Parts: sequence; structure tokens; C-alpha cells
Amino acid sequence: MSVLFDRIALIGIGLIGSSLAHDIRRLGLTKEIVVATRSADTLKRAEELGLGDRYTTSSADAVRDADLIIVSVPVGASESVAKEIAINLKPGAVVTDVGSTKASVIAQMQPHMPDNVHFIPGHPLAGTEKSGPDAGFPGLFEGRWCIFTPVSGTDETALKRLRGFWEALGSKVDEMDAEHHDKVLAIVSHLPHIIAYNIVGTADDLETVTESEVIKYSASGFRDFTRLAASDPTMWRDVCLHNRDAILEMLARFSEDLAYLQRAIRWGEGDKIFELFTRTRAIRRSIVQAGQDVDAPDFGRPHPLDKK
Amino acid sequence: MSVLFDRIALIGIGLIGSSLAHDIRRLGLTKEIVVATRSADTLKRAEELGLGDRYTTSSADAVRDADLIIVSVPVGASESVAKEIAINLKPGAVVTDVGSTKASVIAQMQPHMPDNVHFIPGHPLAGTEKSGPDAGFPGLFEGRWCIFTPVSGTDETALKRLRGFWEALGSKVDEMDAEHHDKVLAIVSHLPHIIAYNIVGTADDLETVTESEVIKYSASGFRDFTRLAASDPTMWRDVCLHNRDAILEMLARFSEDLAYLQRAIRWGEGDKIFELFTRTRAIRRSIVQAGQDVDAPDFGRPHPLDKK
Repeated sequence: MSVLFDRIALIGIGLIGSSLAHDIRRLGLTKEIVVATRSADTLKRAEELGLGDRYTTSSADAVRDADLIIVSVPVGASESVAKEIAINLKPGAVVTDVGSTKASVIAQMQPHMPDNVHFIPGHPLAGTEKSGPDAGFPGLFEGRWCIFTPVSGTDETALKRLRGFWEALGSKVDEMDAEHHDKVLAIVSHLPHIIAYNIVGTADDLETVTESEVIKYSASGFRDFTRLAASDPTMWRDVCLHNRDAILEMLARFSEDLAYLQRAIRWGEGDKIFELFTRTRAIRRSIVQAGQDVDAPDFGRPHPLDKK
Repeated sequence: MSVLFDRIALIGIGLIGSSLAHDIRRLGLTKEIVVATRSADTLKRAEELGLGDRYTTSSADAVRDADLIIVSVPVGASESVAKEIAINLKPGAVVTDVGSTKASVIAQMQPHMPDNVHFIPGHPLAGTEKSGPDAGFPGLFEGRWCIFTPVSGTDETALKRLRGFWEALGSKVDEMDAEHHDKVLAIVSHLPHIIAYNIVGTADDLETVTESEVIKYSASGFRDFTRLAASDPTMWRDVCLHNRDAILEMLARFSEDLAYLQRAIRWGEGDKIFELFTRTRAIRRSIVQAGQDVDAPDFGRPHPLDKK
């Protein structure tokens, strides 16, 4: 692979930032990786892991002479990062982010971006429930989608360069407007996380069933939800606060549908229940066919006999 | 392993019945496996798979001279099976089931059981989202819990024999009363399935986001729910109808908690959101520590680079 940007600054070095670092190095996409994070402890850990070539707690310093700047912080911190880095950005630099909400990130960052840099909001749909610099690994973005939500008037050449970067990581790139992105993500990502957090909270609060029972018997369904509900609390708090309208709309629909199902359960309307439970099966099939999940039963979780 | 029951009749040969067949044979727990299912097609498939020694569409025939009868049918079919087999049950035989709801199964089966057989309701907490005789596999029960909900006056020797059977399959056996079982399962299993079915239904009904977008971007959270929502519709319709009260209670609590969270999102109360999202993380940790789920990120789903 060839060098695509001479110097890349990674602002934020959590799961996404550190995975980017692994891949940029592995694929030789730059000559120098500069790692910046506000937390001295996290920076130290990033250095121990050898994620960059230079390390700083100042994002303003990090972006000096960088050709590509990737902001990978909780979306609520986007504006303060934009303000900090703005003055030191190199003319012609490409600035992108990886935030899960796009309209809010644009509103926070765009006003601070100098006219002579290319700000292209992006969102790689990749991750795990783990967080921090130790959570990153090479290949996280391989085969995954990365969505760009360019603002009007974005330079085509800059767009093409950034697309080339994500494609080098193995991602497939899509483009859509920020509002549509936020609606799509509200249903495919934000609502599932919120529901997962909520159900785990409900279980935690029961008096009639003990917490140890919930844990002991969790393999019968509950444990699936605990994975999403173990995701980074700061990141997800910010998502809730920064994609509020789309999330509230999806929550309203979800609750409406749940009330319908609840009523069917109360009144013993087996046919209504059966209809829903059959329809949903087809969607799983489509997801597996589209290569978006494994076909192996139980997500391919290992079974005891596998080891024998 | 030694023979524990001379003849075992499996009534129903779906995911659970066929997994039992694999293990009983593999471990040599009986001299003869009799497979019964009402559907001629399913029976034919079971025979092709070599799951039993004898095959019949009549459960009444199947139980003749059987020492252990395991009923593995959707819980709504329990009473009709009990009625059918009652007259042919061998004195001293052990009759058990694998149903996900216990108070209802007891109410359906117990009245039909002759005094000279040992009816011991049971529930192995094991399975995958797949169904039918092809879905079974050896080792499904290894390391999993099996809950007995014995009725009062149950013969201790019979209980011990049945416990020995499940332990031979690698299961750990617990005992509790049926009402408590139904409450526990309502939260750890039934509510998660219902919520999963519901959210997949909500996504399927959107107008602003296309189904192909939902599928394409499902790896960002949604796909986790589609696994549970691909479970057998008949089985789960019956669970909803036969554990109604406990399920409605859990649904009410879930909805109440969701309304609280929704309000926090609407009013931008980040601290309330953060508190919940932090608390739930600890539960995931406990589940992993208890060996009830894998620690590997993303359920250990394979990543593209694994293959390279």
C-alpha cells in the first residue's frame, strides 16, 4: 500500500482511534502518525502500545502540518476540539470525524473550520462493546460501511482522497445527507443501544428476581442485550443528547408497537403475535444473506464440545 | 457412560428434541430411542438424520414401555400430548418436558398423569435461534442450567434419576417452584425475545428509512436483535400466551423505565442517562465472569482479518 497522507493526526485514541492507528501503520498509509488525547493516562497507554510516532495532550499541537485529521471523540466534545484545532490547521488539510450523529457534529464543527481546509464529516459503522486504546485492533473496518455526509460545496478531490483512505482500510463508502444519516442510525444503532441499556436496567431493579439469578440464567436471551449495554457510557450519553429528535421519533414508534403487542398478549390474540414473529424472521435471513452477520447459530459463540 | 433408562421416548423432535437424541446416543444413555412427532415430514427428516431407533407419528404408541418420556413441543401443545400419552404410560415411568413456561405446563399435563408415573416438569436453558430436527447438535446442554419445578410429593428417587440424566448431558440442575421459574424466565428470556421481535417489527415498518438500509447498516447494533427475533414463531407465540401475567408485569416495568429514559433524553438530562449506562456495564462484567457469555468482543464474531 502507498502513502496517502504524509502526516495523519488522530484526535482521540479510544476503540476507533486506536483501530485506525493499527491499520494506518499496518497498511503504510502515512509517514507519521500523531496521537492526541486530553487524558495523560490514556496518552501514556497509547504510547506503551506504540500506536503513534508522536504523542501530545494538545490537539492544537497535533494538527500542525497534518494532512489528514481524524477526530474520534464522543460527539459532545466535537465543538471544543474544532475550536482548539482551527487555528493550526494546514491549508488544504482534510478534517474528518467518526461521530455517530452527523447533523450535530456539523453544527458544532463547521462554523470553526477555516475556508482553506476540507471538512468532511464521516461515520464508520464499526466497533465493539469495548472501549479505550487497548480495545482497538487491525481490521476493524474491513468489510464495514463508512458513511460520508458532506456539506454542500465540498471539494471533489478531497472527497476522493478521503474515500481512498477508507477503502484502503477495507471499508465500503456511502454518501448521504446528515439528516437522513441521523434517521437511519437512530433505528439501526441508537434505538437498539437504548433498548439494550433499558432492559438491563429493568432487570437490575427487580425485587422478585435476584441479580444472581439474572446473571446465572442470562444465556436464555438476556445476555445478548448486555453486550450493547456494556458500550462506552460517555459516547452513548452524547449520542442520546445529540440525535435527540430522531431518537425520540424511533422511541415513540417502538413504544406504540410494543403497546400493540402487549395488548395482543393480554387478550390472547395468538394470530397477531404469530404474524409479527414470522415477519421478523425474514429480516434476519436478509441480514445474513447480505453478509452483515454470521449464519452460525448463536452468533457462532463457542460451544463446550468445540474444545474437546 | 452407562444406560440410565432402557427406553427413551422423545415426543417432538425440533431443536431440543433432536439435540437430546444426539446426546443420548453419543453418551449411550439408553438402549432404544423412540422418536414421535405429529408431522410426517418432520418424522421423515428425523429418520434421514438417524436420530432414533424407531419412529412414529403417534405419541401414544411412542411411550409404550418407555422408561423416560421427554415432551419437547411448543408449550401450547402440552395438554393434548398429555391426554394422548396418558393411557399408555408404563407404571414407574418418568415423564418430563422442556417447556419455557412451567405453571401452565403443569396445569395442562398434571391432571392427566396417572398416579403411578413420575411427572417432573423441567426446563433446559439452552437453545439457538434455529429450529427443527436439523438444528439439533451434540453438546447443546453442556454447561447450561436445567431447572426442575417439581410438584409437591414428587418421588425423590425419580427426581434423582432425572437429575442424573441431565447431569450426564453436562447440565447443572436447579430446583425452584413453577411460579418463581416463570418470573425469572419472564425477565431473562421472554422479555428479551419480545423486545427483540418488537424492535425488528418497528424497523420493518418505517417509511423514512428503507428496509435495504436497515439490512445494510445493521451491524451497528440492530443485527444483535435479529437473532432472537428469528426464533421459532410457534414456540414463542405459545410462551407469550402461557406466561402472560409474568410477561405483562415485566413489560410494564420495562415501559416505565423506558419512559423515564425517554424523558431524560428529551430534557437533556445527561447525568441520568450516564448513571444508567454505567450501571448496566457492571452486569455484563458479572455475566462474563460467571462464564455465561464469552469475553471476546462482539460475541467473538469472526472478523475479516481472522481468515487471512
